[in-house]
Amino acid sequence: MALELYERLCADDRRPSPYCWRARLALAHKGLKPDYRTVKFTEADRVAFSGQSKVPVLVDGEAVISDSWNIACYLEDHYPDAPSLFDGSGGRAMARFVNLWVDHGLQKALSSILAPYALAAAHPDDRTYYRQTREARYGESLEALATKRAVFLEALNPVLEPLRQRLNESPFFCGERPAYGDYLIFAEFQWARSVCDQDILAAEESALRVWRSCMLDLFDGLARSVTAYDTAA
Amino acid sequence: MALELYERLCADDRRPSPYCWRARLALAHKGLKPDYRTVKFTEADRVAFSGQSKVPVLVDGEAVISDSWNIACYLEDHYPDAPSLFDGSGGRAMARFVNLWVDHGLQKALSSILAPYALAAAHPDDRTYYRQTREARYGESLEALATKRAVFLEALNPVLEPLRQRLNESPFFCGERPAYGDYLIFAEFQWARSVCDQDILAAEESALRVWRSCMLDLFDGLARSVTAYDTAA
Repeated sequence: MALELYERLCADDRRPSPYCWRARLALAHKGLKPDYRTVKFTEADRVAFSGQSKVPVLVDGEAVISDSWNIACYLEDHYPDAPSLFDGSGGRAMARFVNLWVDHGLQKALSSILAPYALAAAHPDDRTYYRQTREARYGESLEALATKRAVFLEALNPVLEPLRQRLNESPFFCGERPAYGDYLIFAEFQWARSVCDQDILAAEESALRVWRSCMLDLFDGLARSVTAYDTAA
Repeated sequence: MALELYERLCADDRRPSPYCWRARLALAHKGLKPDYRTVKFTEADRVAFSGQSKVPVLVDGEAVISDSWNIACYLEDHYPDAPSLFDGSGGRAMARFVNLWVDHGLQKALSSILAPYALAAAHPDDRTYYRQTREARYGESLEALATKRAVFLEALNPVLEPLRQRLNESPFFCGERPAYGDYLIFAEFQWARSVCDQDILAAEESALRVWRSCMLDLFDGLARSVTAYDTAA
């Protein structure tokens, strides 16, 4: 049966979307290898069959699932014999909270830093769309946003503190082995290295660097296999 | 066998410590009713038997456990037939991350608002200690900190966003029923209502207010049973 993941395509065949990386890594965790289908920002009609306009969208035979969280839950429920993404009902509930913290905390802190770079990384066909939507969101030009990079990096610092603390206790956020909580967080770092030629982590972030490198190695280097900057090599 | 919880005592018999509330609620979740032993900030010698100076400390027969996270794990492991605090190994791992996010995110945002109030709520014997340690931490007087309350409340607003989002999906952070993730977060709100006569939540925070009220009702109103301001009634 067809297993297809519709994901965002950017310039130079880049695949930066953190939401799509959540799905990519969840699929790999379950031992599943989808065919990738690409969707530019201005090609929302390509996923209209899913009843909405965003990626990722997973097609698994007759099933069509949109939204990265729904995809993770679908995989957990329909592939119960493969390694667990959540390790129990409590893990699913708390991972959902971590998902929302990533969306409204970590990603928000990162997006102010990355948006100007993401413009250059956007597919040429999407750059007008990307500029217009992001400048409307931030209320200023992406060039003006870029001038405040140092301020945003400073604001990111305390947001990373719970991550540092956790990695001082165990090699992965989910403990001895990576699971969905790790994918939620790593997807943001993968977004960063996909669009930005300057590392968002300072040289002294040793625990985060070690973890990020381990995450890049997972699943035969899945996250290393795409076009990206080697800032996190 | 003796079951005793050593916790912080403040003025008017108040028990504001969020760390101690994590332990109080975890014990209640397991159906356990400890005897409470009080410790002022300047009475660290009262828990010296635990090999460290902080509260909470749980004494369960021969076992002595300090640190709220260690206490939660101890209760989960030694009372496996009582309702689970984590609902699985994934729940424990992710709850630990949420614990660190509370410590370094939510609590940090709240402490700037609450510290000036906590001075008045501190036991009279502890006020000099409290002022000295907190003013050293903040690098300014508690009175100077208090003048910036509006700024700190504004900074708290985005920190609450993942909480709001989660409560739009389910009645508790842990899903249909409260578990340790709820206690971690609620303990911060209990700290607030224990020391501060002004609600930290705006009137329009409906989901958070409903959840907080439910949490106050748990275990026969355990959190309502202590001296506090009725800002969250």
